[in-house]
Amino acid sequence: MHIQDTIAALATAPGAGAIAVIRVSGANALDVVSSVFKAKNGKILKDQESHTLHLGNIVDGKRIIDEALVSIFKGKRSYTGEPTVEISCHGSSYIQQEILQVLFRKGCRAAKAGEFTLRAFINGKMDLSQAEAVADLIASDNAGSHQIAMQQMRGGFSNEIAQLRQELLNFASLIELELDFAEEDVEFANREEFQNLISKITRVLKRLIDSFATGNVIKNGIPVAIVGEPNVGKSTLLNALLNEERAIVSDIAGTTRDTIEDEIAIGGIGFRFIDTAGIRETVDVIEGLGIKKTFEKISQAQVVLYLINADKFKSQPELFSLEIQKIRNRFPDKPLVLVANKMDHLNTEQQQTIYNQLSELIPEDSKSTVLLISAKTGTGVDELKEQLLQFVNTGALRNNETLVTNSRHYDSLLKALEEIEKVQLGIDAGLSGDLLAIDIREALYHFGEITGQVTNDELLGNIFANFCIGK
Amino acid sequence: MHIQDTIAALATAPGAGAIAVIRVSGANALDVVSSVFKAKNGKILKDQESHTLHLGNIVDGKRIIDEALVSIFKGKRSYTGEPTVEISCHGSSYIQQEILQVLFRKGCRAAKAGEFTLRAFINGKMDLSQAEAVADLIASDNAGSHQIAMQQMRGGFSNEIAQLRQELLNFASLIELELDFAEEDVEFANREEFQNLISKITRVLKRLIDSFATGNVIKNGIPVAIVGEPNVGKSTLLNALLNEERAIVSDIAGTTRDTIEDEIAIGGIGFRFIDTAGIRETVDVIEGLGIKKTFEKISQAQVVLYLINADKFKSQPELFSLEIQKIRNRFPDKPLVLVANKMDHLNTEQQQTIYNQLSELIPEDSKSTVLLISAKTGTGVDELKEQLLQFVNTGALRNNETLVTNSRHYDSLLKALEEIEKVQLGIDAGLSGDLLAIDIREALYHFGEITGQVTNDELLGNIFANFCIGK
Repeated sequence: MHIQDTIAALATAPGAGAIAVIRVSGANALDVVSSVFKAKNGKILKDQESHTLHLGNIVDGKRIIDEALVSIFKGKRSYTGEPTVEISCHGSSYIQQEILQVLFRKGCRAAKAGEFTLRAFINGKMDLSQAEAVADLIASDNAGSHQIAMQQMRGGFSNEIAQLRQELLNFASLIELELDFAEEDVEFANREEFQNLISKITRVLKRLIDSFATGNVIKNGIPVAIVGEPNVGKSTLLNALLNEERAIVSDIAGTTRDTIEDEIAIGGIGFRFIDTAGIRETVDVIEGLGIKKTFEKISQAQVVLYLINADKFKSQPELFSLEIQKIRNRFPDKPLVLVANKMDHLNTEQQQTIYNQLSELIPEDSKSTVLLISAKTGTGVDELKEQLLQFVNTGALRNNETLVTNSRHYDSLLKALEEIEKVQLGIDAGLSGDLLAIDIREALYHFGEITGQVTNDELLGNIFANFCIGK
Repeated sequence: MHIQDTIAALATAPGAGAIAVIRVSGANALDVVSSVFKAKNGKILKDQESHTLHLGNIVDGKRIIDEALVSIFKGKRSYTGEPTVEISCHGSSYIQQEILQVLFRKGCRAAKAGEFTLRAFINGKMDLSQAEAVADLIASDNAGSHQIAMQQMRGGFSNEIAQLRQELLNFASLIELELDFAEEDVEFANREEFQNLISKITRVLKRLIDSFATGNVIKNGIPVAIVGEPNVGKSTLLNALLNEERAIVSDIAGTTRDTIEDEIAIGGIGFRFIDTAGIRETVDVIEGLGIKKTFEKISQAQVVLYLINADKFKSQPELFSLEIQKIRNRFPDKPLVLVANKMDHLNTEQQQTIYNQLSELIPEDSKSTVLLISAKTGTGVDELKEQLLQFVNTGALRNNETLVTNSRHYDSLLKALEEIEKVQLGIDAGLSGDLLAIDIREALYHFGEITGQVTNDELLGNIFANFCIGK
């Protein structure tokens, strides 16, 4: 891929702030900015050293657009791996636009989404999985997703993959070399060492593939369906969960227009609470619309949190037991937490009775549990948090293990494993080198897809289209 | 005022962008950032030169929060005039917050609104009117308001004021010195030169005071009341006005909750279009609610744009003439533009008839005019733009004249002029030096208010409270 253009874009969040940063990258970045920049002390920007800051005016002919601070990065010593200038200007949208316009008139073009990072990849400043981690890092909104993105950006498993790929490549070359000397029946590739490598690769691939389930929920937040009537105290509960956490709550428009999801960070892990109306009101119409929607939402969730008004349960337990039974029948493997709210309305004896009654409604396994809480007073809320965190395997996160979170990587890892298993079968069946070599090359191809050693424009286009402009 | 704390805040717009900048300023800025920064090449931040950039990790103990680029400004060579560090990090809100939190734990405190600029003022990097211009610059959303803010930030009229103040101060000292030698009847202050100075100051003050009307409308946008029925094509007209301009449209909640204002930049000047329902429907109830509201809005406007459906006017001209008469009676001095829309529905003869009929309804002066347009086809829209621009004195802007836009400055200028006029009266009446000196000191006080040589905590608090955090 050939890069000639010099690109420019706003790199900070849009809208008015105290300052804004406009990033210019490309072979002519310094020339273009020099043509619109007048340093306070008369210095020539191009003669200055890399990694230095200069105060001056951004001008359009004689008109001064703004007083700005300009950072210069020369040669390959920049984020993009090509000459870069960052203009730190006053944060008015008007000024941002005026500066961009004058840069465009001087020969820059507007950067496309992710184009700075694309250039960093093309110029060898990072591999493809690291580039993808940059977008994840910008999107990270809790400790868990941040840690995973950070790890991946710092090399993460792509270093491991790249190294295994190199070892495999060496063997592939040796085996292919044997083919040239087929008539002499030599073995350049030590078959025992080769078997060890294939075993090692298989182990690593399986571990990484297994990590995807955990990595993916940590990255995207664990979906929790809250089943419960409108007045059962859902929002009070969400507020209580939020209470002691420095958390980020956001309203995300769900997949269906009537779904609102609240995202809350608990213990550094994001949980997405999906509100459902429950299926109480459709008790007689088994296939009613309400029940269908609730089931849909539960099927998207990893955990079902069934919220009960303790007062109401006391008087009509049969209504609840019917509904709970339905959920269990439909989703036998899904973790189910029965949460009786408003326990502050009950005395100890009543609480014990309700606990016993509810416990009878769920199977005795580690996936289901009963909790008595008062969202209003906060009693039992910590236990609920603990319970939710137990459903996530946070061990991997604590131990700083490599987690795969990107479904593109997951796909390539699965395909690579498939090919490696074919190689193993080939070894076991005593296949000849020329046949082994084909499967090895396939596996190498899928390894290369992850790190970007194998790539194409369409793939790059898809990846970087998900970036924001300016990155 | 004594500054000891080191302050930190997000300086870029809130929300997610590719990058975000956190600004740290104060005596300990370098120490604090050094304690959380590990340079890639192991360099010690404090040993580096001012105005240099360094890549490394922001860490909290062993945990890496982000890979960031750090700019250092040593001694007084910064925006604030004290040691400053800017941290350019990835733009996730989570990362921004984590970095701020670790800085706060290391001894920074959160910066208050405008506190960086307040420090720049206290440390003598800019005078008070320049500091105020920084906020105006960030708020500027069209060429006019931007030019005025830029001019003021670069010294603008405060240089002129400061110089006149110095000259006046010299005379004040000389005159006061005469008092010490009162018995000897000497004149240290040359009375002719003094008279010249007072005349010059009077001229400058009057010019600046006169500029306020123009400056203020350019800064805040020229309010234009559009009178017209809902279906007369108001939004089509606003879109047509927008069409060829790279303009900013925004919905501003008006002073009354039912008012929506559209802001459009025409020829670099902001116009605020205030929608009014018109007074047609209340034709019989002179003091009806509708008419009252419309009159209220017209009274806030600088120009009245009366929009007429040409079709309707053709059939019932008397309804319109009554309304136009009412507006003229009530606001005889307000520029009035009668705009007959939908002229594309009429033939040339009909157009001429309507033009003649409408022309009879307005006085023959430069303030009132008739325009035939078609908002839909765009015919006549350019003429309307021209007409609107004629109501603004853009000459001052074109000639780069100093314009006063700040009502605080306007107040001080008025008060200073009042005192200077007293001095002049004193000179004319041959008052003695000791009496002159009192009025001169008063005038000096008001000059000092503008540039900030005379100030107090309450005034500073009021001014900087209007800034955004991080500036």
